[in-house]
Amino acid sequence: MAPKIKDVAKKAGVSVTTVSRVLNGEKYVKDDLKDRVKQAIDELGYTPSHIARSLVRKKTNLIGVIVPDVTSSFYSTILSSIEKTASMNDYNLLVCNIIEDIDKELKYLNVFKEMRVDGIIIMHEKLNDEIRDMIHKLGIPIIFSSVKPTDQAFASVIIDDYTAAYDATRYLIELGHERIGFIGGDMRDVTSGQNRYIGYCRAMADSSLPLVDEHVRFGDYKTQSGYDLIRELLACEDRPTAVFAVSDDMAVGAMNAVRDQGLAVPDDLSIIGFDGSQLTELVRPRLTSMEQPIQEMGKVTVEVLIDMIMDQEDAPGQDVVLKHQLVVRDSCKRHG
Amino acid sequence: MAPKIKDVAKKAGVSVTTVSRVLNGEKYVKDDLKDRVKQAIDELGYTPSHIARSLVRKKTNLIGVIVPDVTSSFYSTILSSIEKTASMNDYNLLVCNIIEDIDKELKYLNVFKEMRVDGIIIMHEKLNDEIRDMIHKLGIPIIFSSVKPTDQAFASVIIDDYTAAYDATRYLIELGHERIGFIGGDMRDVTSGQNRYIGYCRAMADSSLPLVDEHVRFGDYKTQSGYDLIRELLACEDRPTAVFAVSDDMAVGAMNAVRDQGLAVPDDLSIIGFDGSQLTELVRPRLTSMEQPIQEMGKVTVEVLIDMIMDQEDAPGQDVVLKHQLVVRDSCKRHG
Repeated sequence: MAPKIKDVAKKAGVSVTTVSRVLNGEKYVKDDLKDRVKQAIDELGYTPSHIARSLVRKKTNLIGVIVPDVTSSFYSTILSSIEKTASMNDYNLLVCNIIEDIDKELKYLNVFKEMRVDGIIIMHEKLNDEIRDMIHKLGIPIIFSSVKPTDQAFASVIIDDYTAAYDATRYLIELGHERIGFIGGDMRDVTSGQNRYIGYCRAMADSSLPLVDEHVRFGDYKTQSGYDLIRELLACEDRPTAVFAVSDDMAVGAMNAVRDQGLAVPDDLSIIGFDGSQLTELVRPRLTSMEQPIQEMGKVTVEVLIDMIMDQEDAPGQDVVLKHQLVVRDSCKRHG
Repeated sequence: MAPKIKDVAKKAGVSVTTVSRVLNGEKYVKDDLKDRVKQAIDELGYTPSHIARSLVRKKTNLIGVIVPDVTSSFYSTILSSIEKTASMNDYNLLVCNIIEDIDKELKYLNVFKEMRVDGIIIMHEKLNDEIRDMIHKLGIPIIFSSVKPTDQAFASVIIDDYTAAYDATRYLIELGHERIGFIGGDMRDVTSGQNRYIGYCRAMADSSLPLVDEHVRFGDYKTQSGYDLIRELLACEDRPTAVFAVSDDMAVGAMNAVRDQGLAVPDDLSIIGFDGSQLTELVRPRLTSMEQPIQEMGKVTVEVLIDMIMDQEDAPGQDVVLKHQLVVRDSCKRHG
């Protein structure tokens, strides 16, 4: 059993009230009493209950985090950065891994509410009406990280996904590619689905390159989906010479499919990814990618959230938009 | 502001005591009062405070988890399994990512204590005296997952690392390899450092194969370390024809180094990894690996811990040892 305040009092030979006064740093406690109490605390290994103190302070220093999939390289990196910044600011993380399970998300939002978390970080944008209603009612500061829900009431830390996708496609065009395929995400997602697709379409149109229906496929950001979709593209009659995949995981799946068909990246097909996850450096050829500043994104998310918690303010007036960056590695080559 | 019990009482037109009696499911509350209270709760979105209830129940349903590095494929997979099993049993996770920072670990153990977590999961075995002292004093059920500290007082869910390493080496020997290199972990770690090294040594000795000092290197389980160490092995005069790396991350680093030197896996060097992480299927050639049952390990860890919490018992009398399994993919070939 963990020692209680009365155990400290007994060991120090003082009243519980005296222990409490010492713990609260009150003046007018004699030095020798203070010393005895402190010694008793050390010897027993007593810690004042966080729970009891939370009741008084109205603050738990807890942040609830909803992650779509902690095993993805992108989310585990951003989570690690969130944890680091939270810890440096004496906040602790309640982590929920939802794997697109709406019921689990609702359950966890209730847990966050019951636990009186000081703030919530959400890393997906598939809010159904029930969840949207619930987070509005919670009355707890909420921030979205790496995504922006259509509901304008919430703060987001994001990159400009449209321009980033435009720039990625533009890079392939500048390498001389004209038949450029697209492996997209879930079109119910505005940030990572629609915006990246529109950026691709616009870049193609601005260079008067035709959009070929057969060269455009949509998946779920994961490796297997990249693997399956690229096989469809490779089966086209006029197959593309380059492909833009909207996640590094999908790009790596695509690279593997190319290789498993006896073809080579980038000789037979150039591939550019999106995210800047650890995978870019782990695969061969190393993956050229349009990178999000993942570490910075986690850090800024926590910093803005803490500001919201401290100021008891609503969401900041505008989103925080971080810079994307093309990192050229070995998976794309000049065409023709 | 979140609604309080007095707001519910006001809205329902009843006393706070009545609301409290309804919440506690007491009998002898008139049905119409019950209905009014329930309706007020629904409309206000009121939730009884977890904090207040914890004070009464002496149980927080929190599990503190100490992860060495959430961005590693192995740890993020086991964490995801721990989270799933915990959530199914209505436990929530406080996650701490320590990255071998002892001060941070001590700080988090204090947080776990203050938060009155019901149990703690630790996934590394580098316990210094200060940490060992502290976790003994905590008086909270603790379980180690995937590692076993030398301190016998703690429960562990592990595989038999010695035999698994023996079997991995044996597999290379049966393929006809005689010059078999070893890329090991941190020898301060008993489970993943010493036991895997001893398994390798013993398998070599049992086949009367010589241990060549130059062919044995130690790193930190990470990709970069595998990359650097294999370059040293390749520079040896009689370089090995096969290598056993004690983590998949190191094996993938090793594969990349081989390729970057213009050589091929498995034609010039066979490589076997250890863990069974997602990476094994992501790289080309796909990585043959001695696999730990990662998902099961996370699940069993939580189940045993919950048993300890419920029974208020100390650690179970013996460790839980799960089965390892060789999964043959494409990174090893027959020699000679």
